[in-house]
Amino acid sequence: MINQKIDIIITGGTFDKEYNELNGKLYFKKTQIHEMLFQSRAKIDFTINKLMLIDSLEMTDDDRKKIVDSCINNPNERIIITHGTDTMAKTALAINKKNLNKCIVLTGAMIPINFGSSDGLFNLGCAVGFVQSLPMGVYIAMNGNYFKADQVRKNTETGSFEYI
Amino acid sequence: MINQKIDIIITGGTFDKEYNELNGKLYFKKTQIHEMLFQSRAKIDFTINKLMLIDSLEMTDDDRKKIVDSCINNPNERIIITHGTDTMAKTALAINKKNLNKCIVLTGAMIPINFGSSDGLFNLGCAVGFVQSLPMGVYIAMNGNYFKADQVRKNTETGSFEYI
Amino acid sequence: MINQKIDIIITGGTFDKEYNELNGKLYFKKTQIHEMLFQSRAKIDFTINKLMLIDSLEMTDDDRKKIVDSCINNPNERIIITHGTDTMAKTALAINKKNLNKCIVLTGAMIPINFGSSDGLFNLGCAVGFVQSLPMGVYIAMNGNYFKADQVRKNTETGSFEYI
Amino acid sequence: MINQKIDIIITGGTFDKEYNELNGKLYFKKTQIHEMLFQSRAKIDFTINKLMLIDSLEMTDDDRKKIVDSCINNPNERIIITHGTDTMAKTALAINKKNLNKCIVLTGAMIPINFGSSDGLFNLGCAVGFVQSLPMGVYIAMNGNYFKADQVRKNTETGSFEYI
Repeated sequence: MINQKIDIIITGGTFDKEYNELNGKLYFKKTQIHEMLFQSRAKIDFTINKLMLIDSLEMTDDDRKKIVDSCINNPNERIIITHGTDTMAKTALAINKKNLNKCIVLTGAMIPINFGSSDGLFNLGCAVGFVQSLPMGVYIAMNGNYFKADQVRKNTETGSFEYI
Repeated sequence: MINQKIDIIITGGTFDKEYNELNGKLYFKKTQIHEMLFQSRAKIDFTINKLMLIDSLEMTDDDRKKIVDSCINNPNERIIITHGTDTMAKTALAINKKNLNKCIVLTGAMIPINFGSSDGLFNLGCAVGFVQSLPMGVYIAMNGNYFKADQVRKNTETGSFEYI
Repeated sequence: MINQKIDIIITGGTFDKEYNELNGKLYFKKTQIHEMLFQSRAKIDFTINKLMLIDSLEMTDDDRKKIVDSCINNPNERIIITHGTDTMAKTALAINKKNLNKCIVLTGAMIPINFGSSDGLFNLGCAVGFVQSLPMGVYIAMNGNYFKADQVRKNTETGSFEYI
Repeated sequence: MINQKIDIIITGGTFDKEYNELNGKLYFKKTQIHEMLFQSRAKIDFTINKLMLIDSLEMTDDDRKKIVDSCINNPNERIIITHGTDTMAKTALAINKKNLNKCIVLTGAMIPINFGSSDGLFNLGCAVGFVQSLPMGVYIAMNGNYFKADQVRKNTETGSFEYI
């Protein structure tokens, strides 16, 4: 068996947003990761670690510290983090500073999984691919590309991630 | 820019099957790859190379030779092949024999992209991740795993791919 | 309360077809009616009466008799029948001959409910609307129209229902 | 041909809300009615009359007057109005006061059409059914039921419409 155990850390983001039909607002109810992995017929060896379910614009320094600590203390070498796109690069940098000897891939979505035409399933697939085959390091997997943590930003006008 | 150009070879398979509402049968009309990459907001540098649109159970030796030749003559080092799952392992082996110095990843789907709850978008994501980061070789990307061409079979009872 | 109890007779048809991922064939596993009514947030007073789950091209005279008998013996005045489109007009005629003092609406789908872009939810909505407000009689509800049982045929070239 | 021409007046509401992936907010871009009728394979004779695209909580008296006037001046006897659910009953009452000799059915959705698991297609189907077969009057079609304009309210706790 060449495939290794993967820990999936859930922090929320657009990925997990749902539509509240009583007030017409978007909100977090639960993570969609189980349904996504089920639909994907994924047979990888993974654990799911739900840290928080928040919009990354509302992520505090404490929240970010919690994510970094979870990476540090994680027994797995291969970690995927689902995260809102707005501050994903900031969190990637914070983890990167710790120089962990792990392969950590952050990913997210522009459209909630529960809505039609989401990019989330593709992005999760990319993250699953990258996390198993990239060298140790911290990466963002978005738009089909991978970016090193210290070389990426979200272009807020196009909504795409790009090299800096 | 660390991401490289990817050639996507289309051969058909469940991926591209559609429902013919006039006779109730499944058939091939066109590849779904453009819609999939659009929905995925993929910004990778790719070319699409539609070789055929067939069920892999009906793939002849000639068809398979066409795929192998397309890999040999391909100017790109990174190649994804969308393929029916039933004979995907056979085609992978045929390509593998040529000992090409390229990274080639075959993928497919258990449920057509156009149907609800397809695994296709996830699988394409995995292939996009693996093809950019695995060493040269021929691989199958299914169920979130990657398998070397000479170490994999489809378990026809479970529908999953597994090591041999 | 002006809305009346509705009995929904299930016979199968494209409505309920699913994709068998192990052999790539379409098949019947269960009726989708419960999920459809749940998604529709329907609060109508209904009973569900699953008679059979078959392709209407394979419907025998015995099957058709079973449907007619179910209409005759049904305690409700308002009945919806989900049915394959290919012989829907034939079944409507068979029920019509019995001159029941009931409002009976047959409907179906061109695309299975479980596939993307199905017309089934719209058709069920039409049937629910017509069955509560048309005079006693036997009707087919397809393509947003209603047709009297003895004035309709399916145009097999266009897939639409039309007056004769 | 027993089916009559139907005018569909578009006012917006949850029906037409979309997700803006650049700022994560819901907004109106265009009406979904054309895609809905296309997917439904509707062959009814209809005209589409886009009056506005707004949340019904933001509907002003002027907006409401515009809808009433459009009903008055409409050459068709059969009219469907797509409308946000929050003030749908208020608009129905305003139209009802005019005692028009027309059959007018308001409908809407709890979940946007563009999101998974919307009730919109079913509701539109119900409206299409009711508008062709109910006596002249003003009605709301929601939850599979029809309600006379002066006998209905939205229960804001359950999100369902009910008799008063």
